Amino acid sequence: MKKTFTTLAVMSLCQLASADEGMWMPQQLPQVAKQLKAAGLKLDPANLTKLTEFPMGAIVSLGGCSASFVSPQGLVATNHHCVYNSVAHNSKPERNLLANGFLANSLGEELPASPGSRIMVTKDVLNVSDKIIDKNTARLNGKSRVDAIEKASKAIVAECEKDVGHRCNVYPYYGGLEFYLIKQLEIKDVRLVHAPPEGVGKFGGDTDNWMWPRHTGDYGFYRAYVSKDGKSAEFSKDNVPYVPKHHLKMAKDNLKDGDFIMVLGYPGRTNRHRLPSEVAYTFDWNYPAFVKNSGDMLAIIAKETKDNPDAKLKYAGMVAGINNYYKNRQGMLDSYAGSDFLARKTKEHDELKAWINSNPGRNKEFASDIEQVEKLIAERDALGKRDFYLANSSPRFLGTARSLYRLANESTKADAERKAGFQIRDLPRFKAGIDAVERSYDEQVDKALVLYSLSKYAAQPKAERNANFDAAIGIKDGMLEAELKSLLDTLYAGSKLGDKAVRTTWLNAKPEDFKASNDSFIKAAVAMYEGSLKREADDEELAGKIQQAYGSYMKAKIAFMKSKGQAVYPDANSTLRVTFGKVTGRDHGTADGLAWNAFTTINGIPPKATGKGDFNAPAAQLAAIKAKDFGKYVDPQLKTVPVNYLATMDITGGNSGSAALNAKGEFIGLAFDGTLDSIISDWDYNKANTRSIQVDLRYMLWQMKHVDKADRLIKEMGAE
Amino acid sequence: MKKTFTTLAVMSLCQLASADEGMWMPQQLPQVAKQLKAAGLKLDPANLTKLTEFPMGAIVSLGGCSASFVSPQGLVATNHHCVYNSVAHNSKPERNLLANGFLANSLGEELPASPGSRIMVTKDVLNVSDKIIDKNTARLNGKSRVDAIEKASKAIVAECEKDVGHRCNVYPYYGGLEFYLIKQLEIKDVRLVHAPPEGVGKFGGDTDNWMWPRHTGDYGFYRAYVSKDGKSAEFSKDNVPYVPKHHLKMAKDNLKDGDFIMVLGYPGRTNRHRLPSEVAYTFDWNYPAFVKNSGDMLAIIAKETKDNPDAKLKYAGMVAGINNYYKNRQGMLDSYAGSDFLARKTKEHDELKAWINSNPGRNKEFASDIEQVEKLIAERDALGKRDFYLANSSPRFLGTARSLYRLANESTKADAERKAGFQIRDLPRFKAGIDAVERSYDEQVDKALVLYSLSKYAAQPKAERNANFDAAIGIKDGMLEAELKSLLDTLYAGSKLGDKAVRTTWLNAKPEDFKASNDSFIKAAVAMYEGSLKREADDEELAGKIQQAYGSYMKAKIAFMKSKGQAVYPDANSTLRVTFGKVTGRDHGTADGLAWNAFTTINGIPPKATGKGDFNAPAAQLAAIKAKDFGKYVDPQLKTVPVNYLATMDITGGNSGSAALNAKGEFIGLAFDGTLDSIISDWDYNKANTRSIQVDLRYMLWQMKHVDKADRLIKEMGAE
Repeated sequence: MKKTFTTLAVMSLCQLASADEGMWMPQQLPQVAKQLKAAGLKLDPANLTKLTEFPMGAIVSLGGCSASFVSPQGLVATNHHCVYNSVAHNSKPERNLLANGFLANSLGEELPASPGSRIMVTKDVLNVSDKIIDKNTARLNGKSRVDAIEKASKAIVAECEKDVGHRCNVYPYYGGLEFYLIKQLEIKDVRLVHAPPEGVGKFGGDTDNWMWPRHTGDYGFYRAYVSKDGKSAEFSKDNVPYVPKHHLKMAKDNLKDGDFIMVLGYPGRTNRHRLPSEVAYTFDWNYPAFVKNSGDMLAIIAKETKDNPDAKLKYAGMVAGINNYYKNRQGMLDSYAGSDFLARKTKEHDELKAWINSNPGRNKEFASDIEQVEKLIAERDALGKRDFYLANSSPRFLGTARSLYRLANESTKADAERKAGFQIRDLPRFKAGIDAVERSYDEQVDKALVLYSLSKYAAQPKAERNANFDAAIGIKDGMLEAELKSLLDTLYAGSKLGDKAVRTTWLNAKPEDFKASNDSFIKAAVAMYEGSLKREADDEELAGKIQQAYGSYMKAKIAFMKSKGQAVYPDANSTLRVTFGKVTGRDHGTADGLAWNAFTTINGIPPKATGKGDFNAPAAQLAAIKAKDFGKYVDPQLKTVPVNYLATMDITGGNSGSAALNAKGEFIGLAFDGTLDSIISDWDYNKANTRSIQVDLRYMLWQMKHVDKADRLIKEMGAE
Repeated sequence: MKKTFTTLAVMSLCQLASADEGMWMPQQLPQVAKQLKAAGLKLDPANLTKLTEFPMGAIVSLGGCSASFVSPQGLVATNHHCVYNSVAHNSKPERNLLANGFLANSLGEELPASPGSRIMVTKDVLNVSDKIIDKNTARLNGKSRVDAIEKASKAIVAECEKDVGHRCNVYPYYGGLEFYLIKQLEIKDVRLVHAPPEGVGKFGGDTDNWMWPRHTGDYGFYRAYVSKDGKSAEFSKDNVPYVPKHHLKMAKDNLKDGDFIMVLGYPGRTNRHRLPSEVAYTFDWNYPAFVKNSGDMLAIIAKETKDNPDAKLKYAGMVAGINNYYKNRQGMLDSYAGSDFLARKTKEHDELKAWINSNPGRNKEFASDIEQVEKLIAERDALGKRDFYLANSSPRFLGTARSLYRLANESTKADAERKAGFQIRDLPRFKAGIDAVERSYDEQVDKALVLYSLSKYAAQPKAERNANFDAAIGIKDGMLEAELKSLLDTLYAGSKLGDKAVRTTWLNAKPEDFKASNDSFIKAAVAMYEGSLKREADDEELAGKIQQAYGSYMKAKIAFMKSKGQAVYPDANSTLRVTFGKVTGRDHGTADGLAWNAFTTINGIPPKATGKGDFNAPAAQLAAIKAKDFGKYVDPQLKTVPVNYLATMDITGGNSGSAALNAKGEFIGLAFDGTLDSIISDWDYNKANTRSIQVDLRYMLWQMKHVDKADRLIKEMGAE
């Protein structure tokens, strides 16, 4: 399952190795117009550059997922796993929407999505590189550079957000060489319209995740609502469906093997031109450590929730998330183990350096920055290793206490002076986060997870530990696990932050209130405050140096690649991108002697359907398949209804829910996953293996019409 | 794994539905010359009809397996599982040839194959229908018909076998409508030359049996030895390698997807034009009962041999055999469950009857026979159900005692008068069988298996039991299992037939000696003798009636099919056949969304190699793969060494070890298996699914050269 990365993306670039490779910024498409036409696109490529025209105007972000308008009444199609939290949020023991699915039979029956759900419509993309790094900032380094960038960014964002109802962000591209201001309409009243039963939308579950063959009906529908005057507004009964300027039309032609396909969406992050040292750190140390840690955490959660169904439910989301990345990272490690990736990367980097050194001008401009970036990255990686266990050693509510205290301190400043993330514009999301803890927290589980990391952390030599943290919590050299446990028991027992009402009152408290508190976590947060500001400053000093040197490295790299006639596109960074390719299987499957067909069909569902767990296909669906009640959704070549299909699209986490379009720009399904041996493409594009997995529009419509009776929506989508 | 059927084959015929369907008698090939040429054959099809010319002259039978001469010195290539018993026979605890493989580095090192091993070279095929059923016999029915056929057959065989060193047999074709005398040179001095380690030759074991993808090096080599004057002879140090008139040349061209292929060998049995009632009996009753019974027998053997490694080894062959058919029958049942086979069969039969009834002449000739055959088959099936458990209720040595006593009685007659199977020509095999029991017998296991069946048999109503058997053994109504067990204990304890020397003395005993014996099994055999002769006569009475009516039914069926312009070939009956098709995968695998490639490669071996059990690839092989020590055996398209490949050949059990030839008649590997969802083709040819599995010559040569260092053989085969 493709899910977005939430960390800040450091961008890079990649040579254009094939027509199927590339997550193109819409404005770049004229550069690949020839390839697009050759691949079969029937639209004018120039059309795709216009964000407010068809079809781009219909493409939206859900934050972490992609989506698209599919009706003139603001109906939004995305993946089942992208509306999953909203289905869960509206489920009750007596009305299990996850198990049974949900279908609103009228606008009035549509349910509010989970708190904080947003539909973001990209309105403008503006190159602000010169404003973010002006002549003065260009001369700065270290923390002062970070501060200047943050200040310029906040000013541009504040100006942009004067257009009420919009959300603006500055995104770095090409490793911080360029910056773009992205302005999005922020639709806050999002409602759940339809989701098939979990046995359809999540059929295959974790077992089939990242796998082929696949039979997952990974689709669901939201609707965007706005105020009567068409403005972004919080939920209100008086709100009305949003009328998008454009929506996608449903394809009527039968999709087939070899057809052109493009996917429009918001890919999260790729790392295709990292330094060799970053590759080595990631694959030789970080991912293996992550996989080990994830396995241990899953075992702890399983053990602690074994006899506690309530806690099990609360941690279901975290378990799914850990499992997803666990399989993802292990998949990449497996691909890496059999590859010459690091050797190639090192060779490429050596070639870059040789090219720089072969010319006095280039040598003067880049050589010392390249040397510098290698040193700085090594420094950052060493800190990453040092703090690996520290990162998970804080009780959840200690984190909450620290955020609240930071908020109280920042709130004493003028808004523009506040740290990004603690400004007035951030408060609604901040509060929603503080509110939401309940639904995913159990003290016993949290304590067991913290004790696991804390024991490993406390065993590190003093010099590698954080004195500030140690002092606030009471960590001393050579503490045994039992002592650490007793220390945690005291800490947890001494705090009332588990009470939502208590947390809420702290949202408006002053710094003095915190200083006067006897709450154990609040006291620890106050004790750590000055030290952590100092540490943040140190981190920013390093980050500023890296920002400058990395940008220079990227500039050299782009120049080098252009000198070889290679086109470049920026690495994914959660902004709107276009990727194109064709519907096709693979002449090699995952096992020797097997190939992958482009399509799976509903004939493959009954053999997998065990009636429970990951393969709990609904009885009504199985009955319809058995009765061959296929209606008009039969593919003429397959002689049955297609379910999922493979394509050569270059997508990654964040593309979940992306509309897949045919050569005419018509909707032919939704991207929802890639295959396990493709994931390494996030770092090292693999043309032979890379396949995205889509749910076929015909399966969506068949299930909606013949099983779930969602005729209202089919009519609204113009797909009768 | 394809193994032969040992029961007497009842033949039938089949319409020619496609170029790939058909197990053609060599003499029929001119009928399909056009198709052969269109499929790509470069040889003159007429050449293939000449049994003593190239390439047919190189094709031999091992009895249950097929094979071929591959050198001018009588080197014979066949499957590993066809030389398995000879490898096992020559293995000792301190020299485990199964595990380590065997390679003779000179003629002197070649080892005698397991007792009874034969290489049969077909010399002549003669239509003797008019002699077997002459005008007199044609008028007979029931037992007198069976007796007349047997008498004629024995006379023809005796005449033929005057040519010393030859074995002659009369085979029924087309359901007993035609009979052919087949004359074969019987080479009795068979020696084991080479077999790869079990981890190559049986790689995948029962797990991969009937499966794709496959990576089995299922090959091994025998050599035919004859006396110095070139005659068939028992083993002797003075014997010399047999010089065949023809041997197959090794292909030099790279085999590829889509290439023409043909397989020459001895398929055991197909049942493509059985009556609807025979289909229903088999699939609705017999096979399900067989599968249930096999599962129970496997469990009993596993339980009884759990702490007895010696017994486990002795029953390994039986376990492999049961497993093979267990999987085979269950595979057919699975295919049958999802098919309309019986309905189609019934419709076809109704059409045949309508065609017969539409013409007074036809009606007069066939109608009553058709009615009769349906009745007789129902009668035979009822007896089959009745005696299902009885068949397995005899202790092994009771069977031996009955055979020995029969032999003693038959031996009092002139040879020509003796029952077939007890003639002088049968004695060597008979003795070898009596000798061999030791290697596959354990009293405790045998008793447990017999008790299982006997308990079920004894629970049948008296009318459905065999009074003769009951009286001899002491079975009474309502016996409890404990009583049956005590009865068996007494029986087993009262016999000395477990002693090989004792058994051997009985080979030359007279009927009076048996009557005077106190051995419990001999006594029971004597007690059952008259009754079982009576029963045999009853069975022959029924068989004779069926023979007559079935032949008539087949004659009608052939006429009906010819009236529709459909060519016919006889069902397989363990005689030499030719099948042709092409090398190709399948656009559908066993699971939805998967396809099968035509080839697997050695790259697929390491991921399967667990180092134990069914996947114990030898370390030397894995090292050679890891080192990419591929030599000249790399396929230019696959970029590595091919291991197994699929083709559309119509083969069945008995084809194991068959040479696969390219369009020029050159050796390109060995057929050794089919895929599970193809097996139903034994009854109902399935063009879409049917694929035979071959081991690629290049894999054989690679393993022989780069791992097993069998350069001597490669040179002898002219494949350097």
